[in-house]
Amino acid sequence: MTNIFNQDLERNNANYQPLTPLTFLERAASVFPEHTAIIHGSLRRSYKDFYARSRQLASRLSQEGIGRGDTVSVMLSNTPAMLEAHYGVPMTGAVLHSMNTRLDADIIAFQLDHAESKLLITDTEFSPTIKSALEKAGVKPLVIDYADPEFSGDGERLGETEYEDFIAAGDPEFKWLMPKDEWDAISLNYTSGTTGNPKGVVYHHRGASLLAQGNALTASMPKHSVYLWTLPMFHCNGWCFPWTLSAIVGTHVCLRAVRQKPMWDSIADHKVTHMCGAPIVMSTLLSASDEDKRELPHVVEFFTAAAPPPEAVLAAMKDAGFSVTHLYGLTESYGPAVVNDWHIEWDELDSAAQAGMKARQGVRYSALEGLDVIDPETMQPVPHDGETIGEVMMKGNVVMKGYLKNREATADAFRGGWFHTGDLGVMHEDGYIQLKDRSKDIIISGGENISSIEVEDALYKHKAIAAAAVVARPDDKWGETPCAFIELNAGAEAPTIEELDKWCRSQLAGFKIPKHYVFEELPKTSTGKVQKFVLRERAKTL
Amino acid sequence: MTNIFNQDLERNNANYQPLTPLTFLERAASVFPEHTAIIHGSLRRSYKDFYARSRQLASRLSQEGIGRGDTVSVMLSNTPAMLEAHYGVPMTGAVLHSMNTRLDADIIAFQLDHAESKLLITDTEFSPTIKSALEKAGVKPLVIDYADPEFSGDGERLGETEYEDFIAAGDPEFKWLMPKDEWDAISLNYTSGTTGNPKGVVYHHRGASLLAQGNALTASMPKHSVYLWTLPMFHCNGWCFPWTLSAIVGTHVCLRAVRQKPMWDSIADHKVTHMCGAPIVMSTLLSASDEDKRELPHVVEFFTAAAPPPEAVLAAMKDAGFSVTHLYGLTESYGPAVVNDWHIEWDELDSAAQAGMKARQGVRYSALEGLDVIDPETMQPVPHDGETIGEVMMKGNVVMKGYLKNREATADAFRGGWFHTGDLGVMHEDGYIQLKDRSKDIIISGGENISSIEVEDALYKHKAIAAAAVVARPDDKWGETPCAFIELNAGAEAPTIEELDKWCRSQLAGFKIPKHYVFEELPKTSTGKVQKFVLRERAKTL
Repeated sequence: MTNIFNQDLERNNANYQPLTPLTFLERAASVFPEHTAIIHGSLRRSYKDFYARSRQLASRLSQEGIGRGDTVSVMLSNTPAMLEAHYGVPMTGAVLHSMNTRLDADIIAFQLDHAESKLLITDTEFSPTIKSALEKAGVKPLVIDYADPEFSGDGERLGETEYEDFIAAGDPEFKWLMPKDEWDAISLNYTSGTTGNPKGVVYHHRGASLLAQGNALTASMPKHSVYLWTLPMFHCNGWCFPWTLSAIVGTHVCLRAVRQKPMWDSIADHKVTHMCGAPIVMSTLLSASDEDKRELPHVVEFFTAAAPPPEAVLAAMKDAGFSVTHLYGLTESYGPAVVNDWHIEWDELDSAAQAGMKARQGVRYSALEGLDVIDPETMQPVPHDGETIGEVMMKGNVVMKGYLKNREATADAFRGGWFHTGDLGVMHEDGYIQLKDRSKDIIISGGENISSIEVEDALYKHKAIAAAAVVARPDDKWGETPCAFIELNAGAEAPTIEELDKWCRSQLAGFKIPKHYVFEELPKTSTGKVQKFVLRERAKTL
Repeated sequence: MTNIFNQDLERNNANYQPLTPLTFLERAASVFPEHTAIIHGSLRRSYKDFYARSRQLASRLSQEGIGRGDTVSVMLSNTPAMLEAHYGVPMTGAVLHSMNTRLDADIIAFQLDHAESKLLITDTEFSPTIKSALEKAGVKPLVIDYADPEFSGDGERLGETEYEDFIAAGDPEFKWLMPKDEWDAISLNYTSGTTGNPKGVVYHHRGASLLAQGNALTASMPKHSVYLWTLPMFHCNGWCFPWTLSAIVGTHVCLRAVRQKPMWDSIADHKVTHMCGAPIVMSTLLSASDEDKRELPHVVEFFTAAAPPPEAVLAAMKDAGFSVTHLYGLTESYGPAVVNDWHIEWDELDSAAQAGMKARQGVRYSALEGLDVIDPETMQPVPHDGETIGEVMMKGNVVMKGYLKNREATADAFRGGWFHTGDLGVMHEDGYIQLKDRSKDIIISGGENISSIEVEDALYKHKAIAAAAVVARPDDKWGETPCAFIELNAGAEAPTIEELDKWCRSQLAGFKIPKHYVFEELPKTSTGKVQKFVLRERAKTL
């Protein structure tokens, strides 16, 4: 039978446009040209300038032959150039490849080659690593140096042109390209896998637009919010916040490095309303001296991910004037796609119970159409009992396009019509998910599964312990046993083994108690995640 | 050359889902099942129930053979059934056709036939009109009566089943249908054209999802906002707010009729945060007796459209505790797609200047990709001078799919790749548009164009005048002359003709001064727009 609603009602230029976050900046610059878009040290840049400079960048890239499907790589801190790259690069139809600034030369060389990079914008702070990487790489991208005035060091210039000179010759009225299709790629972010080569996660314009708006909706971010860059923009494109801020005509406060005094000063001086970061950012804020801490003008919304925020940290953050929301996501989901959506009734719980609620990863963003905990064998959802462990799976418009030049890994990640996160978790009765462990982090001791998170949670509650990471240590008798690496609070005395055993025994089943304790600083990735694979190697040698 | 970002990176079920607002309700019910979704008189309905009842409706419709591409018509006030229809109908793949409850039987019969309606849900208040319409119509839809307990009258039942009985047999766990394609139609709204038959404007799931989110972003509506239904839901699907509220898990406060005491009581008792309505709603609120007015718990955001809010009304609204934002749009743009996006600096202007700023229609929503004032002959944008008149045109994802079964009108509306609004306006230097007149309302006197809005604005400033509408009156000498219809403030004495002439002369060029003044109540459409075509007829007979 004919569907009358599909007759003579086709898409056309008047009623269909590809979704893209690029139009957010065009709108912000047109409607609020004088509003401050970027604060960086003493620099203030309006939306008019932000847009004009992004177009200048796009114009110059085009002149250098960059166009649809080309890769532009950047090695940049949280600086204005990084924000401009988030617009100027895709405005040419090219794809933005952001690199983690703490990577070593070998991995950078691998990424540049794999991405077939045509042009590289690199902050002079990272010149030593990049120089070495360029020697190792097969590709020979055109190199543009970025000499940020806020960088106090003395960085070598690797190319022939500095960024400001490069874009100065660009056309601020450049007629930039819309994507041909909203499925066109906008950016490329490599995962830091623990084994094998990193995989290149491809984002498209549609997903970037939807997650950027989803951030504002999920976080109830009003027009003109002020956002502090404590999350690296190279990490999942800063969870898409470089695009979110344009959608709500907000202000970016850049920061080259997450240090205590500049953070507190930025928040107080610029009236920051929102910020994101790994748990390590909260610890850094809280451990600032009283001199460096500042009175805050209002409650600051803090979004954290990577690890559940411990009770003591939550309480201290609240006292310091922050409201903490727990998010969860992966590079493959454009950053956060799951939120611990808070119920006002939970405010009535005691602080331990609140922390328990807040430790859960939560529910899907509106922009993520599906989230479930599924048995990967049967592809059936696990019961909502808070106990049965399954794999967290996602589906929807904010799931990546796939892995670049890696058909097998892409097919594997999407098998059964779901994106397989590789994270293990449970589904609570109320539909909130909670991670129980990254698959590879589960400890199997005497045939029993031990969640390393559960053991860590117990250790975290000890007043002398600042941070704890528990990994599996091979054991002839038990197969594996838990091994705990512990960072102590400044000035705290290390508890004895007996004391720790007693402490754990009061909270955990006997087989879950660590057989080894190591007191040392935990190795972390540049985004604040504990590098458990390093600890697993250490544990073997004990 | 091969684009590596388009190889082996196709859409699949894990990374692509059709956009639709239906998933907003599913999410709200899953995450906040106990949150109050709907308040209607003494009734409170949770999100869990709202979702379950919508699925029951969908289930029953399916059982009646309703499916993809079918039309379900509704004749409903702002009631829970109307909200359920916004989800339950499209959950079957069918299209929701909402009718203006003040239409007469002939037009309703035309709409039912043109829409090929299969089923009709009708509030018993409107039984007399519907009975007559069904006699005139060729189609014979299954009729479901809705007997709203909040309706105090004694409405005849036209069908064999009442709505509650109908859905009671439905399955609350019904596996509803996602759209096959986000371009699939979700709803049908007929425009009330002044000439010829009404045109059926078709919306799709993609646009409804984007405008629903756009409302929340544009209005900075936080999670759990409370929304009062003073705008009819039959008007452009209530500007898509039935879907917006689910996206932010807010609360709908229903109202069968816009009356003073229930409005003030609802706002105060339920802590309403946002509401929408034509200017007549503001006048109704403000003219309430002191007894009926209530102290408000916080500033209430009021969104108005259809006519620029006059200075005196803005000032009175501010004093009463409302913040007024001016929106603009058409049925063809899902309701509002343009917003008078306020600059904080404008708060420093005096109240007349603020009203002048607020009278402008403004700038595009983020969800509308293009908005311009264009010369329809050359299709070139007019200069940004605030003077050159052109036609307001739009393009983007929140422009309708087209007119149902009307290929010619669709093609005409979209000619040149823009949607032609038929409204005339100017573009100010700062990129804000301002309507100068609906095309058909311009008055041409002695070869000079007169904007009826300009004359009305001058009249509005007179303290005795509550409302004014100016239309063209045929004139042998001048071709046309302005004729003013005036509503006086309650208790105000009618000014003399001499007084009004002098008043207008102090503000307008001589040729713009009305040649006739008529004191009488203005005829309005059910959505509060003045029916100028009625006045034009009246003017001829003077």
